[in-house]
Amino acid sequence: MTAQSEPSTVPASRITISVDAMGGDAGPTAVVAGIAISAAKNPDIRFILHGPSDRLKPLVAKKRILADRVEFHDASEVVSMEDKPSQVMRNGKNTSMWSAVESVKNGEAAGAVSCGNTGALMAISMIRLRKLPGVNRPAIAILWPSRNPQGFNVMLDVGADVRADAKDLLQYALMGTSYTRNSMDIPRPRVGLLNVGTEEHKGHAELKEAYTLIADHADRGNFEFVGFVEGSDIPGSTADVIVTDGFTGNVAIKTGEGTASLIRETLRESFMYSILSRLAALFALPSLNRLSKKIDPRRVNGGVFLGLNGTIVKSHGGADATGVSAAVKLAFLLAQQGFAEKLAARVASSVELTQSEPDRDPTRATEH
Amino acid sequence: MTAQSEPSTVPASRITISVDAMGGDAGPTAVVAGIAISAAKNPDIRFILHGPSDRLKPLVAKKRILADRVEFHDASEVVSMEDKPSQVMRNGKNTSMWSAVESVKNGEAAGAVSCGNTGALMAISMIRLRKLPGVNRPAIAILWPSRNPQGFNVMLDVGADVRADAKDLLQYALMGTSYTRNSMDIPRPRVGLLNVGTEEHKGHAELKEAYTLIADHADRGNFEFVGFVEGSDIPGSTADVIVTDGFTGNVAIKTGEGTASLIRETLRESFMYSILSRLAALFALPSLNRLSKKIDPRRVNGGVFLGLNGTIVKSHGGADATGVSAAVKLAFLLAQQGFAEKLAARVASSVELTQSEPDRDPTRATEH
Repeated sequence: MTAQSEPSTVPASRITISVDAMGGDAGPTAVVAGIAISAAKNPDIRFILHGPSDRLKPLVAKKRILADRVEFHDASEVVSMEDKPSQVMRNGKNTSMWSAVESVKNGEAAGAVSCGNTGALMAISMIRLRKLPGVNRPAIAILWPSRNPQGFNVMLDVGADVRADAKDLLQYALMGTSYTRNSMDIPRPRVGLLNVGTEEHKGHAELKEAYTLIADHADRGNFEFVGFVEGSDIPGSTADVIVTDGFTGNVAIKTGEGTASLIRETLRESFMYSILSRLAALFALPSLNRLSKKIDPRRVNGGVFLGLNGTIVKSHGGADATGVSAAVKLAFLLAQQGFAEKLAARVASSVELTQSEPDRDPTRATEH
Repeated sequence: MTAQSEPSTVPASRITISVDAMGGDAGPTAVVAGIAISAAKNPDIRFILHGPSDRLKPLVAKKRILADRVEFHDASEVVSMEDKPSQVMRNGKNTSMWSAVESVKNGEAAGAVSCGNTGALMAISMIRLRKLPGVNRPAIAILWPSRNPQGFNVMLDVGADVRADAKDLLQYALMGTSYTRNSMDIPRPRVGLLNVGTEEHKGHAELKEAYTLIADHADRGNFEFVGFVEGSDIPGSTADVIVTDGFTGNVAIKTGEGTASLIRETLRESFMYSILSRLAALFALPSLNRLSKKIDPRRVNGGVFLGLNGTIVKSHGGADATGVSAAVKLAFLLAQQGFAEKLAARVASSVELTQSEPDRDPTRATEH
């Protein structure tokens, strides 16, 4: 199946996004402020807001732009950051997070956004939405600031599962390609497989197996395989999609985020150093703002769960209104593109590919 | 064995550092300029310079500060960045890199510095210096800019070996602790084990095993175990030593370096944006220089190979004179501290610890 035969986009006027109002560090006030920003920018968006209605209704009433655009689903309990996914799966039915996923399951909403506990959100999404047929491990994909013209690279998995075998990594390549095609204007994304060096002999045996598998599927999957890439290529321009297991991906993004935040702090301290440097900061402000905007993590807030029957966007736990609004925008964009259906079609076609594996020309592997 | 019983420091006047003049991206000119900086700052340092003497002698002759302080070991061949470690092990005897390691093996130098191919340098170091008794996998430790008072954290392994089991990770904790004690003024370093979350139930089974093993050895190893840490703690203030396998460590540092360099570039572009912003840059220059100095990778240039009979410092391949000088300074400092002997003593004591494992009180594991 090719891009041409994928379903067409959904009319925007129909799009409702399900939003978990609770569970983020900044509380429901930031979430309501975030959906108000989205509502102001986008007349075609509606919301279902999940949480304790008696707390949420007064917050929403204060935002005129939200009038008649929010439906409330009352949920008295909240998943905390400390809750274990297994506990939430058993006892979480009355939580705002569960309710938010349920709206996607029921078809009331085209996608859901939550700032809450990632592990719990993935666990609820798995049992309520179920994995797409043919997907072994779902993945979380994020956008990372990069030197590429589109300004970002897609990286997956960043923490849905700490393990991934060669076939899982192939699935990530296919799902990441589909996500990139639907969230950016890149018809034939370049895929790189994360390793400790770019030479073919480097890394674990499993990675070498994944290398061959991904190379074999590049043409039929309509992506370009650039081979092994390194950590420095995550913010680089070598690939548009970085494929890795959830353990490595999670450590990599947290290291990158931590380093960026250390630099931001150090920059601020440098400019607070003396009266003269504070004065200089005034002159430098427009330039510093340009930098901030380019590397602002809130602009690319939202990890997308790939491989499920439905679109779930995990916003950063510490997201403020701007961050929540960015996650909502992403969920809206993917709904508008009919991404869930396209991804299902893509994965179904890849299952055929993988199943036809034994019949493929055995000489092919040596071409790569 | 405790820090008190470790051998005392070596008189500085005796210290000779073996330097591979070839193999770096910037060539021997940068290496000679680098050792000249070190020589100017440190009257007690001497050098053995390895490479084609006919090329090196004229370069050294131009630096008056190096007069009578450099011995030349002629080596006609050079290890390139593309050479495979296995090839270099078989056919590399006439290379400058091999010769540089040989001077440590012979006891002519107290440590060696090379800007060349990391894999080849580790392979040569392994076969010439041999692993310390009790060390299964040597590790490469680096310093990473952090929020800690000392300004840096130690992280290992960043790429000596892509695999590490629980016992290897314990060795890394012990070697990293010893390195931290000898390169910074931290008597009881805090050790963190890198994972995807700080909760004890997260991550691979092997990491949970390592968690118990490291926790059990903290008191006798004279370090504090802070448990699991995340990628964001590598530049953070939670731990002084970050322990991980070489695959994860390598991806993490390259992601961090890549992100830092993207921010540097973006900052430069922001200030080059308009005539006004270029003017602002002039005012902001002292502040920007303070930032640069704090996060300058050249200041912490040098990965140290731990677990071998001898000190080898791997300088960044792209190091300029400042970077080479930083790597030389590190090799000198470690030699002055008698680090190689202290590390051997530390590892020997840990072998006893690990071997006495079955006799330990079985209730201990539950304390942690």
